Amino acid sequence: MGQPIITRDAGRYFLTDRIRHEVDWWNTPQARGEEPPPVQKPVAPGAMVIPLPPPATWGIPPCSLADGIARRESRRRFRAVPLTPEELAFLLWATQGVRARLNEAAVLRTVPSAGCRHPFETYLAILSVTGIEPAVYRYLPLDHALVLEREVPDLAATVTAAAHGQRFAGEAAVTFVWTAIPARTEWRYAEASYKVIALDAGHVCQNLYLACEAIGAGTCAIAAYRQALADELLGVDGREEFTVYLAPVGKV
Amino acid sequence: MGQPIITRDAGRYFLTDRIRHEVDWWNTPQARGEEPPPVQKPVAPGAMVIPLPPPATWGIPPCSLADGIARRESRRRFRAVPLTPEELAFLLWATQGVRARLNEAAVLRTVPSAGCRHPFETYLAILSVTGIEPAVYRYLPLDHALVLEREVPDLAATVTAAAHGQRFAGEAAVTFVWTAIPARTEWRYAEASYKVIALDAGHVCQNLYLACEAIGAGTCAIAAYRQALADELLGVDGREEFTVYLAPVGKV
Repeated sequence: MGQPIITRDAGRYFLTDRIRHEVDWWNTPQARGEEPPPVQKPVAPGAMVIPLPPPATWGIPPCSLADGIARRESRRRFRAVPLTPEELAFLLWATQGVRARLNEAAVLRTVPSAGCRHPFETYLAILSVTGIEPAVYRYLPLDHALVLEREVPDLAATVTAAAHGQRFAGEAAVTFVWTAIPARTEWRYAEASYKVIALDAGHVCQNLYLACEAIGAGTCAIAAYRQALADELLGVDGREEFTVYLAPVGKV
Repeated sequence: MGQPIITRDAGRYFLTDRIRHEVDWWNTPQARGEEPPPVQKPVAPGAMVIPLPPPATWGIPPCSLADGIARRESRRRFRAVPLTPEELAFLLWATQGVRARLNEAAVLRTVPSAGCRHPFETYLAILSVTGIEPAVYRYLPLDHALVLEREVPDLAATVTAAAHGQRFAGEAAVTFVWTAIPARTEWRYAEASYKVIALDAGHVCQNLYLACEAIGAGTCAIAAYRQALADELLGVDGREEFTVYLAPVGKV
């Protein structure tokens, strides 16, 4: 197997905040006066965009915050029924929805992010959502819409393979696949970016767990995945943008 | 400043799941048949333990999950009023509460954790909670109780210093300080532990953000802290247990 690239010492160091003292704060992209990266990855010219139902139409059943927290568990068995576009819109809002746009470079969302950098894009392997063809889509938080990214033959099997063979990823109504665009956070935090990107991904995923409880759905996050297959599924380059976390969602 | 120990390449690699292919899975502590670490750090003999109010007494005002998500924001200005023990108990349950004990080595909590490892201890710098003397305490999830860890002269100033001078950490009613005991996760995941520990910390903190909204409180997580000062505040060794994230909480 050889020596892991991340040793125990390096991994533990990574979880501390000692890196902050190593960063040359006078030489970050922000300190150098560079423009911050866009808050949302652009849409390819001619790509199909699907507007999502607005909040007033969602009709989310009443669920108290305390009940959602109490009921949350990791769910890997899903009923073979589709999600509605309204339910999907609610889950996307809960995980990356925009509350306010401060300026070109910063938006406030339903989840916190270190330095308001929000380094994620949300991809969806849609397998069973009413009225939406199975394919890989991406959420556009600024537009509250989906963009069709890729049509994938045998999508369920491909998603399962990307999820290291965990079959519930292909049995879900939709599998969320979050990528990071690390440059968004590096712009401000340089080498101190990586721990906070992982913390931020945890914030996002926890809201997905809870929001699922409100609509009779469930999820179980997947951190064990095949990096190259997941990146290929989404059509991202694996370097400037790469998969960081997955979460299959289905009715329970 | 010198070269950061975590380079951009190493940090980005850390966020992928490529490490999983580097681990010698036949040689993890779990695979070798070692006992897993305890799910809760032991209490020092003779330490003062304070039982927390049980759920039936909390009287949490109604707050829907969707409203909690919609209202959540980063809050750094707190009113100078104490939290009640009931409110504190609710926040601790929401972030690390035990739903079920599977066996000696595994408990299900209100938050998910990779491989059910739950690597965190929750310390509280209590500054203003009715009936509880200001000091550093630790939550005992198995007992739903606090244990007094350390009495610290000038606690507010010490917490502020540990939080890199961010004054709201010392103006809070209570500042949560989470440590990781990485051996809990390493037992199962070896060198693939560190990203998932950070993801798990994000899950925990997001529940704190939301639970705060239900009780008229707020928080703003702190990832920029002074590692040595924070570890010293808690009395942890900085190697087998160390601070990973902070969150001051107060009424808003």
